[in-house]
Amino acid sequence: VKSTEESPRWQPIDGGVTAPTGFTAAGVRCGLKSSGPDVAILFSDRPAAAAALFTRNLVRAAPVQVSMRRAASGFARAVVANAGNANACTGAQGLRDAEAMAARAAERLGVAAEEVLVASTGVIGRPLPMDRVLSGIDSAAQSLSRSGGADAALAIMTTDTRPKERALQVLLPDGRAVRLGAMAKGVGMICPNLATMLCFITTDAPVGAPTLRTILQSAADVSFNCLTVDGDGSTNDSVFMLANGASGGQPIEADQSTLRAFSDALAELCIDLARQMARDGEGATKLVTVVVTGAADDAQARMAASAIANSNLVKTAMFGNDPNWGRVLAAAGRSGASFRPEDASLRFGPIEVFRNGAPVAFDPKAAHDVLAAPEVEVLLTLGDGPGAARYFTCDLSYEYVRINAEYHT
Amino acid sequence: VKSTEESPRWQPIDGGVTAPTGFTAAGVRCGLKSSGPDVAILFSDRPAAAAALFTRNLVRAAPVQVSMRRAASGFARAVVANAGNANACTGAQGLRDAEAMAARAAERLGVAAEEVLVASTGVIGRPLPMDRVLSGIDSAAQSLSRSGGADAALAIMTTDTRPKERALQVLLPDGRAVRLGAMAKGVGMICPNLATMLCFITTDAPVGAPTLRTILQSAADVSFNCLTVDGDGSTNDSVFMLANGASGGQPIEADQSTLRAFSDALAELCIDLARQMARDGEGATKLVTVVVTGAADDAQARMAASAIANSNLVKTAMFGNDPNWGRVLAAAGRSGASFRPEDASLRFGPIEVFRNGAPVAFDPKAAHDVLAAPEVEVLLTLGDGPGAARYFTCDLSYEYVRINAEYHT
Repeated sequence: VKSTEESPRWQPIDGGVTAPTGFTAAGVRCGLKSSGPDVAILFSDRPAAAAALFTRNLVRAAPVQVSMRRAASGFARAVVANAGNANACTGAQGLRDAEAMAARAAERLGVAAEEVLVASTGVIGRPLPMDRVLSGIDSAAQSLSRSGGADAALAIMTTDTRPKERALQVLLPDGRAVRLGAMAKGVGMICPNLATMLCFITTDAPVGAPTLRTILQSAADVSFNCLTVDGDGSTNDSVFMLANGASGGQPIEADQSTLRAFSDALAELCIDLARQMARDGEGATKLVTVVVTGAADDAQARMAASAIANSNLVKTAMFGNDPNWGRVLAAAGRSGASFRPEDASLRFGPIEVFRNGAPVAFDPKAAHDVLAAPEVEVLLTLGDGPGAARYFTCDLSYEYVRINAEYHT
Repeated sequence: VKSTEESPRWQPIDGGVTAPTGFTAAGVRCGLKSSGPDVAILFSDRPAAAAALFTRNLVRAAPVQVSMRRAASGFARAVVANAGNANACTGAQGLRDAEAMAARAAERLGVAAEEVLVASTGVIGRPLPMDRVLSGIDSAAQSLSRSGGADAALAIMTTDTRPKERALQVLLPDGRAVRLGAMAKGVGMICPNLATMLCFITTDAPVGAPTLRTILQSAADVSFNCLTVDGDGSTNDSVFMLANGASGGQPIEADQSTLRAFSDALAELCIDLARQMARDGEGATKLVTVVVTGAADDAQARMAASAIANSNLVKTAMFGNDPNWGRVLAAAGRSGASFRPEDASLRFGPIEVFRNGAPVAFDPKAAHDVLAAPEVEVLLTLGDGPGAARYFTCDLSYEYVRINAEYHT
């Protein structure tokens, strides 16, 4: 993040999606999951610019297909979401159900159906029990509040072990304070067939839809798109961002330094959420950050970082607290990134294990302690090029296998 | 394999690399592994055409670098190999050691050092204990015999749970019988940092080096290059093939139908070895064959098959005997292969679970029984295109995690 060099212009504040002015939310139980709230509504009390990012999987769930069309308008007032059923591979009925969810929320909220985005996560291939879902939507619409963000964050969880929220107050260069809020669910699952990443971001800053799209994509490129638990992508992944302008003033894109400050804060927010998701990956015992530097360009660094972060051999070594530098180098070597092994160096946190193509003697006890920590950094230098990338992942444990093998369709 | 439609022109025969005429082998213990033989020599009693395939990993072990240069000549007389130490990431000393191994074998065998290929597998980053290795080579050279193939197959194992050999007698269209033999080690490892695939193939058929290269590459494309245990490629992977012409007659490439018959048998041999390696993958409880058909072309089918075979979610479902069709479709969906989900159909062996984009009701007990077998077929049709591919893999079990997490560098 570029702005870490300067004094940061943001500070964490309490709450999540309802921390920015003008947003309310609710999470209620309608009985799709075995326990806990499972229907969420997020609502802006005024029109909001909207941007969205979706899974690139060819197999797209019904709510993804519906929301893709609606987000194209650049405006939205609300998001309705459920957990416990992904409404994926459900054919024409699934599309009708996703549209009915949005229509019912719109009716209860007094907005147009086209202004409501929809997201679902959970088991695939089963029709939604629409009676329960619709009564859940009714109940959620009645429960909307400024303090409802936490319940909404619970309602989108599947087998996440904890809710994921983050809010920042951003001091813009012109002296205005604006707020960013978010909730997310990550890549943990037992009941769902597929790990789904959902993230809903709000801001009371005034931002036009084209700018919102651009900065959301940039933020995702250094956060959600650098996140891997097991390399599998879902049918339902969605990131929605709503900007309602409730803080007033000029659009943030009217001034370059304002835009930069806001974009940096948004990237910070997304990186924090990506880290929360990696840390809560299926069976994860630790967050592993892979940093590759010295590559010919960023794309090459990204190829190497992705291969390392997705390597089962690296991830099992992390689980075993094993400073297994050979696996890291081999993953980089097969990644397609171009480098000379003689120029490569590798550290696990502060412990240097490989320098300019040759092993470095290190204290095994110290290395074990570094790797046994809840956060581990793998730092690979490929040469002296300007390319760099950072990936977020977790270790691969027995628990990952248990979670994914013991589920029965 | 095309020739399954016709009556097969080959039959299995006993033995491995020494089944073809004119080859001897030995496997002896020099103390690199904790137990069992760990140095192997394979020898042709006359000059042989040679072809070789190597890892595409940028990080190449010293023996790979040495053998790449030597195999370029198109001729070889012998292979010397060790297990227990990969001689990888060992710098200039490693290159000198790999050359010294070949030189010592050449001296004992009475051939030129340039005629000896070298391979190593085992732990990386440690210098070879050359005194032990050289005395092992002396001992192996004295022990060469027509019945030594089995010992050689044991000597190249690391944590393979069983040796992998295969021999075929091929009846050529002109009435000649020639033999193919092979030994391989697969992708199981505790002590080594990296899973290494080694395969040594012999034949007494007369084949010129250019043809040998072409047909070995073709055979590898449908066998070793369609094999995945965990998607990680090693620094040491090598496939060597020696053709010594001891069976006499015209070169097999002199006649198209002869060449076809021989190539088909070679592909059959390599597919059998790939299946043996997948079945003996780290922690594997079953062999999983992924067949993709109906793709726009073979390359697209291959992308989908590779993504499915490498998916941790699919592999844990296989371990759990779970007919989780959603994971298979999602892996194909993110593979980059182009298809319409509405045209896709999926079977697990005889059990159809998905047809033309919609789930099919199936008997869960029958599906469980199919998936609990030691061999499982995943059969995905993407549409009505001509493209097809077949991948070999295994399930992902607790034992995989244990093997790879409990090893300590």
